[in-house]
Formats: sequence, structure tokens, C-alpha cells
Amino acid sequence: MRYELYYWTGIQGRGEFVRLALEDAGADYVDVARQRGDNAMMPFLHGKHDGALPFAPPFLKAGRLVIAQTATILAYLGPRLGLVPGGQSAEIYAQQLQQTITDFVVETHDTHHPIASSQYYEQQRAAARKRAKAFRDERLPKFLDYFETVIERGNGRQALSRHSYVDLSLFQVVSGLDYAFPHAMRRMQKRIPRLRALAERIAERPNIAAYLQSPRRIPFNEDGVFRHYPELDPKR
Amino acid sequence: MRYELYYWTGIQGRGEFVRLALEDAGADYVDVARQRGDNAMMPFLHGKHDGALPFAPPFLKAGRLVIAQTATILAYLGPRLGLVPGGQSAEIYAQQLQQTITDFVVETHDTHHPIASSQYYEQQRAAARKRAKAFRDERLPKFLDYFETVIERGNGRQALSRHSYVDLSLFQVVSGLDYAFPHAMRRMQKRIPRLRALAERIAERPNIAAYLQSPRRIPFNEDGVFRHYPELDPKR
Repeated sequence: MRYELYYWTGIQGRGEFVRLALEDAGADYVDVARQRGDNAMMPFLHGKHDGALPFAPPFLKAGRLVIAQTATILAYLGPRLGLVPGGQSAEIYAQQLQQTITDFVVETHDTHHPIASSQYYEQQRAAARKRAKAFRDERLPKFLDYFETVIERGNGRQALSRHSYVDLSLFQVVSGLDYAFPHAMRRMQKRIPRLRALAERIAERPNIAAYLQSPRRIPFNEDGVFRHYPELDPKR
Repeated sequence: MRYELYYWTGIQGRGEFVRLALEDAGADYVDVARQRGDNAMMPFLHGKHDGALPFAPPFLKAGRLVIAQTATILAYLGPRLGLVPGGQSAEIYAQQLQQTITDFVVETHDTHHPIASSQYYEQQRAAARKRAKAFRDERLPKFLDYFETVIERGNGRQALSRHSYVDLSLFQVVSGLDYAFPHAMRRMQKRIPRLRALAERIAERPNIAAYLQSPRRIPFNEDGVFRHYPELDPKR
């Protein structure tokens, strides 16, 4: 099966979670908008096709299926790419964790866009400062502690004791947060040894290492989800 | 199977999407915290159990499985309660739509809490006014138009041409928005005839009609996701 991934060019964004799964598995896929431009997505977003209507990119075309929402795409790809342990409880746990990652990504995004996605960061800077402070002080530790505990509990248990798309997404989250909030992440360093080890292990997987070195890995930048604005991450 | 639902007492919140599915299907379930208090959830949130660790309520105990995240719970319950049409494409589409509803609910919540969930509304009122304006002007119409189009396309197609948990969740979203944003919803009235018809149809289903009349249906209030603050929904 040749998969078609549709996502905005120019940013890693939410598409990157899908891209990492496809790359890690060595799947046959086309990154359609990167080849043909963002306009290639419009017929799908305007519903000029059969099948499911995406609300927004990323979406995946798999044969006749059109699948949107990162967590749904990964729930579909996981068993097909060998990126989730077998068995119902592991698949369900992976879905749950991926949706929690989705929530975490939304909250990360909203640190720089607390008022409106349609407005520039500069137009919502004052609110962003406040939201980013609450994120650094409360939400970032809460989410990272949670995933650290999940990994700790996973040892010796069936669910997620083996490699999965959730691991790849956690790598992406940690990488993005290191870029966006280097000071806050340094303060968290000692609290998340298992998450750090996981991220290092993922970065060394041959297909991921090759991908990260390739031009297909767009650098983090200030158009994506994970943005580095120094005033949102003071050194203290 | 007797399901155990765990969710905060006192609000409809995210638990209501699960509750509506259980009620509509006439499932055998216990609303644990309503019987034993919110503290009954703590052992699970603190990981003093086997199995998956919830990040937050709602979560469902189904035999030995512990399942968190509304969309994951519904993806699990859907086929078991006859609340999703058969076939892979319908199940995937339902998951995708439910996750889009999750996103919509987050954005609705953040109209009154744009800075921090841990702070009172009164502490973030100025930002809430701005975020609510962007929500009313841009996001509310975008999401509602999307679901209207999904229903329109659904007619005569396989996916979601029959009753599903997504319909129940859309009923809940429309009901909540009518409560929180009555003026904005009135302005949308003519653009969403199919969504309106769906919500009416759901309200008339015997099990749902009985549930809505029962004391189990807590009224909307200003502690939940859908809150009515008149200054966030001016008449214009």
C-alpha cells in the first residue's frame, strides 16, 4: 500500500507525528503537498471527494480511505506498520495516550496563541505571557510527570512494553519542547529520566536517525506548534 | 458486562458524552463517583491499580480494562453497544469525528479559561472576552459548518448514515452551545438545519428522553465546559 500524507508544507506541525510513524516503519508514502504544494489538499478540505471529510490537515489517503485527526491516523496505521503491540488492551492504551499527547500539543500551541489562531502572535503577546507561565508552572510538569509514570508502570506490563507509535510521538513532543522551552525543560530534567532515555533511543533508531538527517525533516520554526519565543521561557 | 463510569460529580463535562452513549444503549453501568464521591476516582488517578493510567476523568472500567479519554472510550463502546455502523471505514470516520468534537469542546472550554484552568474565570475575564469573540466569529461557525456538511454528505453514503455515538455527542455539543452562547447560536440557526434536526431526533429517542427528564441529567452550570457568561455572548 502506498500511503498519501497530506499536510501543510513549511512546518512539522501535527503532520510530523504521522510522518515519524511512516518513516520509522519504512512505509511507502508520498508527502503530497511537499511535492505539489498546499493547494493539493484543498479538494479534500472542500469535500470534492468520496469518503470522510477532514476538518483540517493532517489527513492520510490509504486506498479509498481518507483518515483525518492525528490520533485516528495513528490508530489506523499502528497495527498495519507494526507500531503497536498486539492485543486489544495495548491498542486501546496507545489510543488513549496518543489523545493525551494531542491535548498536550493543543496546550503547547495555545501558549503562543491563547486568543485566536487567526491572529499573529504579536497581537496576543500579553495573554501569551500569562498562559505560558501557567503552562510552564503547572501543565508542562503535569503532562511530563504523567508520561514518565506511564513509562515506569509500563515496565514488566504488557501494554506499551514494546515499541509503538506513542514512543515516536513522545520523542517528537520532547524534541519540540526542548526547542520551545529550553529553560523550563532543563528544570524538568531530573524528573523525567525515562522519557529522556526513550527520546534518545528513538533518535538512534536507524530509520529515524536517517530521517532526522534528511532534508525531509524541516527544522522547528516559529510557524509551527513548537515555537521558541524567549519571553515565554524566561531563564529565572 | 457492568461498566463503571468515573467522572466528577456536579458537572456534565466530558463525562456526559460517555453517559449519553451508556444511557441511549440502555447499558448496565454504575456512575461510581455519583454514588461514592469524587474520592473514588483517586486510586486510579494515582495509579494504585493494574492497567492503563488515566491522565484525567472521564475513565471507564470495563472488566479488567481501564480506558480514559472520551474519544477512546467511545471508540471502545461504539461497536459493543451498537452505537456505530459496522465496517472499518465507518468506525474510523466515527473516531475522527469524535476527536474533532473533542477539539471543539476544548476550544469551547477555553473561551472562559484562555489563560489557566487552575485560575478562576474572574481572573482571566479580559482575555476570555477576546477569545470568546474569536470563537463566536470564527471557530463556532467553522466547526458547525463542518458538522453540517458531514451530515449532508452522510446521506446516501455508508459511513454514519445510521445512528452512532457521534450523533449523541453532536446533540450534547448543540445543547451545550445553546446554553452557553444562545445569541451566537441563534445567528447560526439557518446555517445548520441538519444539525438541528439531528439534535431534535436524539432528544426524542426514548432512552435519551427519559434520561434528560431524570435527576441523572445534571443541569448545565458555570462549573462545567459549557458556561453561560452573558458578556461572552453579547446580543449585538
